[in-house]
Amino acid sequence: MHLSEITHPNQLHGLSIHQLEQIARQIREKHLQTVATSGGHLGPGLGVVELTLALYQTLDLDRDKVIWDVGHQAYPHKLITGRYNQFHTLRQKEGVAGYLKRCESNFDHFGAGHASTSISAALGMALARDAKGEDFKVAAIIGDGALTGGMALEAINHAGHMPNTNLLVVLNDNEMSISPNVGAIPRYLNKMRLSPPVQFITDNLEEQFKHLPFVGDSLSPELSRVKEGMKRLAVPKVGAVFEELGFTYMGPVDGHNLSELISTFKEAHKHIGPVLVHVATTKGKGYSLAEKDQVGYHAQSPFNLSTGKGIPPTQPKPPSYSKVFAETLIKLAEDDPKIIGITAAMATGTGLNKLQEKLPKQYIDVGIAEQHAVTLAAGLACEGMRPVAAIYSTFLQRGFDQIVHDVCIQKLPVFFCLDRAGIVGADGPTHQGLYDIAYLRCIPNIVLMAPKDEAELQRMIVTGVKYTDGPIAVRYPRGSGYGVPLMDEGLESLPIGKAELLRQGDDVLLLGYGSMVYPAMQTAEILSEHGIEATVVNARFVKPLDQDLILPLAQQIGRVVTMEEGCLMGGFGSAVAEVLLDAQVNVPVLRLGVPDVLVDHAKPDESKATLALTPAQMAEKIRASMTIEKSVVSV
Amino acid sequence: MHLSEITHPNQLHGLSIHQLEQIARQIREKHLQTVATSGGHLGPGLGVVELTLALYQTLDLDRDKVIWDVGHQAYPHKLITGRYNQFHTLRQKEGVAGYLKRCESNFDHFGAGHASTSISAALGMALARDAKGEDFKVAAIIGDGALTGGMALEAINHAGHMPNTNLLVVLNDNEMSISPNVGAIPRYLNKMRLSPPVQFITDNLEEQFKHLPFVGDSLSPELSRVKEGMKRLAVPKVGAVFEELGFTYMGPVDGHNLSELISTFKEAHKHIGPVLVHVATTKGKGYSLAEKDQVGYHAQSPFNLSTGKGIPPTQPKPPSYSKVFAETLIKLAEDDPKIIGITAAMATGTGLNKLQEKLPKQYIDVGIAEQHAVTLAAGLACEGMRPVAAIYSTFLQRGFDQIVHDVCIQKLPVFFCLDRAGIVGADGPTHQGLYDIAYLRCIPNIVLMAPKDEAELQRMIVTGVKYTDGPIAVRYPRGSGYGVPLMDEGLESLPIGKAELLRQGDDVLLLGYGSMVYPAMQTAEILSEHGIEATVVNARFVKPLDQDLILPLAQQIGRVVTMEEGCLMGGFGSAVAEVLLDAQVNVPVLRLGVPDVLVDHAKPDESKATLALTPAQMAEKIRASMTIEKSVVSV
Repeated sequence: MHLSEITHPNQLHGLSIHQLEQIARQIREKHLQTVATSGGHLGPGLGVVELTLALYQTLDLDRDKVIWDVGHQAYPHKLITGRYNQFHTLRQKEGVAGYLKRCESNFDHFGAGHASTSISAALGMALARDAKGEDFKVAAIIGDGALTGGMALEAINHAGHMPNTNLLVVLNDNEMSISPNVGAIPRYLNKMRLSPPVQFITDNLEEQFKHLPFVGDSLSPELSRVKEGMKRLAVPKVGAVFEELGFTYMGPVDGHNLSELISTFKEAHKHIGPVLVHVATTKGKGYSLAEKDQVGYHAQSPFNLSTGKGIPPTQPKPPSYSKVFAETLIKLAEDDPKIIGITAAMATGTGLNKLQEKLPKQYIDVGIAEQHAVTLAAGLACEGMRPVAAIYSTFLQRGFDQIVHDVCIQKLPVFFCLDRAGIVGADGPTHQGLYDIAYLRCIPNIVLMAPKDEAELQRMIVTGVKYTDGPIAVRYPRGSGYGVPLMDEGLESLPIGKAELLRQGDDVLLLGYGSMVYPAMQTAEILSEHGIEATVVNARFVKPLDQDLILPLAQQIGRVVTMEEGCLMGGFGSAVAEVLLDAQVNVPVLRLGVPDVLVDHAKPDESKATLALTPAQMAEKIRASMTIEKSVVSV
Repeated sequence: MHLSEITHPNQLHGLSIHQLEQIARQIREKHLQTVATSGGHLGPGLGVVELTLALYQTLDLDRDKVIWDVGHQAYPHKLITGRYNQFHTLRQKEGVAGYLKRCESNFDHFGAGHASTSISAALGMALARDAKGEDFKVAAIIGDGALTGGMALEAINHAGHMPNTNLLVVLNDNEMSISPNVGAIPRYLNKMRLSPPVQFITDNLEEQFKHLPFVGDSLSPELSRVKEGMKRLAVPKVGAVFEELGFTYMGPVDGHNLSELISTFKEAHKHIGPVLVHVATTKGKGYSLAEKDQVGYHAQSPFNLSTGKGIPPTQPKPPSYSKVFAETLIKLAEDDPKIIGITAAMATGTGLNKLQEKLPKQYIDVGIAEQHAVTLAAGLACEGMRPVAAIYSTFLQRGFDQIVHDVCIQKLPVFFCLDRAGIVGADGPTHQGLYDIAYLRCIPNIVLMAPKDEAELQRMIVTGVKYTDGPIAVRYPRGSGYGVPLMDEGLESLPIGKAELLRQGDDVLLLGYGSMVYPAMQTAEILSEHGIEATVVNARFVKPLDQDLILPLAQQIGRVVTMEEGCLMGGFGSAVAEVLLDAQVNVPVLRLGVPDVLVDHAKPDESKATLALTPAQMAEKIRASMTIEKSVVSV
């Protein structure tokens, strides 16, 4: 059987190990080819090929539920659940998504994109099953990295307390999150991986036990207990933590040995209550370059399969915002030992890996633990440090309560750097950084800013680091800047709450925020071609808004357009509307941004076009609104 | 020495156990008297009197840092850190706060109100200390309930990985959160509590060991390891989980035995790296009624100290919103086994304890774990259940990412019931439910509603339970309803997104949301006395807003006032402003609600008066704004 013939995972039932091995090879081939061509996640999927096949051979996917954590490792799952033929459209507009999506396939039982959610969702399904008196299996597959996320531990605490609720948790232990893991839990797992296999030692010990003189019937109670417990102790308490927390622990299992995996899963399915199967996998398995450089090959842009090298862009790209952020921060941190960069398992993505290389003492990776990252930063700030928490807009959602409760209420000077703010492209809805303006703007005491380009980002990094009156945040987009000249020296901070007037015109006031400032300028040019002259303001700060500049201009020009790469509900445009109305400046306001819909995966430019956020489209909308206004007035 | 003479905790240094016992008695006396008079948290503080005194005797509070988790157990701390004389003002306007606050005392090293934050903050301070090359002690005191919160576990994962970072975590194990604890971790702790004290067994075992024939020099490596580890095994692996996670575990210690506590803390301070001292305390210790009914005496309204009975209100109060919520839900759940009520350790506060009594199979308490609660609900919804997650507005902040990522993106029908939405009174800034409109409104796919009174809450509960197109949430205030008649039968759901016209008048349109609808009606009456006739609309839904009703009214009346018990930034008024501007209805909008400041503890009515949100104040503001408008127009 060839992989392309598998349209339903139940077709795996009854295949021999040899046949499964062939399928595994074909999955790896297709996986590699596709990612080399389209880009996408490489290492995570390659590591779970056997795990996926073995698990699915022991399940009935028409009834049983499988919940993949994060979902970036689920390409093998996609390839055996009816998406082989579309797989070349991976992560492209209207193509196969890079993560799991309930609306994409009946076999995607739960969507994800953020880590650590799978056990909670799986337990919910298991409890529903039992409440309905049904009988199916529920399996969550979670990485060792994701296991450091608090919500996964909350779920283990809950599931471990339900001895009659059947639930399989497969721990996909590849010793990595995107970067090497952090923390005591991964270290503990690693210790287990290094332990000799369970069976061997216990057998060995049992044998020796028989020859011991004290193995008799007349032991004291304490010694009886010693004897009973000895087996577990002798096998360096493999899995003891999980056992203490109510799980039956099985493993570690070689995650690339199909027969071992299948027999373990079969055994696990027989157990009553929560079971954890600890599977040791190798990220990037089967592609030697990825096995060697697991960080580098976690996710890839299109690359040459034989050399592993990225396909160079047709023209060199300006530096990314992440790079500018990191280099600027390093420069500042070299002069100020109080600066501490904090990441939650996103060292390479945020660029903080460079800080780690240069100034390791001023760098903290807390693992996948955004909540802890935020409150840790608050603690550092209490003691006079300058914590700089670099977290993607979408992941900072995890630390929302901590931002309110631990940082803003206490007005502690934590500097949040929100990478990937705005439309993120191929990662899709779970990763869009669209809500941060709204979810941060409502909290008292915080300053919010966004740069128009990478040079302004430099100045905002300086501003954030130097601001000590309370919390401050900067949002910046994924990807490259505009190639504007960067400053090496003499970086000055910006005045808090002051906007920048970029262009003057009498007909309409365009207020751009962050990544929409250049498009606002381009829009102004297009409008000008139509005889409409726009004033353009780079707002720089959404909180506090520069009312001194904006209100008189709005009053005078009489027509306002706001532009933001964020949700319109409660966002920048809403903030502008608030101050205008509060000041009784009752002028028309056209708010351009992301409406109240999910934004699917596509290239950022494609998404912007779909959302009518290109300069041409925006100019058109502005012109249309001005026509309507006139007709309203004339009625 | 009398407690009243202690103005600095270092005065405890050198006091004898006998003297400390006297102080402990005086603290309990003052604590009980004050809470009996003013209301406040009772059981938590009484349980940590000795813990506080013992710890502080071993610390130098001028240098060392103590971080109390939640803070509701810190009344003893307050009484020995200079607040004895003001303690009678507890939880009253401008009086001593019920939680810790950095701005209230130099000894409040970190504020809190939500659970599970202390280890993160403490680790941040410890890392700052080491970065600065300073030398002081950092102690976090966390309850066993708070230890089920994911962020505490994230912090343990991180701290356990820092073998050279001195950090003391004191586990205040009273076997309770507000209600009895849930989960495998508390069960594990309980097992430890029930273990015989460490020293006893190990001594005993060592003794028996000597007489065993196999204790010699010629053991196989496996058996050597057995012998070495036996001690820990024999004492049912007390603390093994913490030890595996990198902490030195000490305990369990009798939390009411001062000398045992002091010697343990002294010993703990000598250790390098993270140490966890497990202290077994009794909630409500020293007040027998509170010891017996630990849930009932967690927090108290004013009560009679000798009988323990609450002082009855001068007139009977209408039922609370929580009660109406719970009773309505129970009624619906009796007819629909798919309804599952979920609480995150707030069974009594949300009223779900009544669901637990009546329909225990349709009730889930996940412990202090809001993130897990939300995604568990998502999992239940996937399988066709009707999960109803009852979580306070302020605590739902913890589940924000899960609401976005697991519920709304997947459009799963989870019903969120946000109790304590709005101004909460004596609990202060950490508990204000002011941000939910803003932080939920920005998420696609969710429906948001708020009832004007408890009868409308009934209908909204029905609406939420019956709505299956996606997520839906209702917010309602803390405290009593208006005493309006409740329906026993025939409860109908409300049409989604439809507002209610309550009063008609030509001069101004008052749009009230939730708890501000009745005040809007009262405001209209006052305005009417001044010759201004208001139309009053009960918005019912902030998302979707009833544009069909609101826009023509706004257009026609030409003057809009919005009223909400929530933050103005991005809130209900902002939503109204958005739709008006989008529809080019350019009329003055006066937004009344909570401005961008923290709201301190006080009676809700006092806070509302401070915020100018009483009907009289609002009427005055509306009149003033209308005068300004006229003057603007006349100029």
